[in-house]
Amino acid sequence: MGDINAIAKQFTDFYYSTFDTNRANLASLYRDFSMLTWEGTQLVGANSISEKLVSLPFEKVQHKVSTLDAQPSNPNVASLIVSVTGLLIVDDSPNPLQYSQIFQLMPDGGSYYVYNDIFRLNYG
Amino acid sequence: MGDINAIAKQFTDFYYSTFDTNRANLASLYRDFSMLTWEGTQLVGANSISEKLVSLPFEKVQHKVSTLDAQPSNPNVASLIVSVTGLLIVDDSPNPLQYSQIFQLMPDGGSYYVYNDIFRLNYG
Repeated sequence: MGDINAIAKQFTDFYYSTFDTNRANLASLYRDFSMLTWEGTQLVGANSISEKLVSLPFEKVQHKVSTLDAQPSNPNVASLIVSVTGLLIVDDSPNPLQYSQIFQLMPDGGSYYVYNDIFRLNYG
Repeated sequence: MGDINAIAKQFTDFYYSTFDTNRANLASLYRDFSMLTWEGTQLVGANSISEKLVSLPFEKVQHKVSTLDAQPSNPNVASLIVSVTGLLIVDDSPNPLQYSQIFQLMPDGGSYYVYNDIFRLNYG
């Protein structure tokens, strides 16, 4: 599963650096049938997902990945499940929030798009 | 996604009550090609997975689910991704450990088996 881990690392590096600098650019990673469940709120489609992410009430945000795991998710397709746990630092708060996020990435030409995305904060 | 949430709830209720009472019985939920990544350790197949779960160094364990989310994971198959965050109470410790766990469940006759399983403790 070496390749899979490299793809997961490359994807999450790109995803979180984009999230932390210009969230609107994340829209291109989703398709019309992609799903996001954000703290229990269900959204479908790149437009709805992008609107949700852009509207989140923080000015400045930084993700720090603590653990990253990946597995192939389908015997017939080169899709993968990526599981992340990490810290979210919002507006320079001294108290980072723990989060867990999972993605299912689907191959599309030479790249991947997000089919599933589930995000949860653990208030601990 | 109402049905999906009910399936996820039913599965996790069964999975964790079995885990907390007789871990060896979890083997029947996995197949020869199922994958478990446990704290970064990769295992494949019901036998290896069951051995790992049974060998975990705690006598008494209790899972408390805090959040449960589910999404369909494939447009062509009634499979689903289940994301859990919760607390793990080991050997009556007064300090529960946070965990996150994700499953991909595949339909099989009238039931489901676990194709993907990724478990992580968040030490906080």
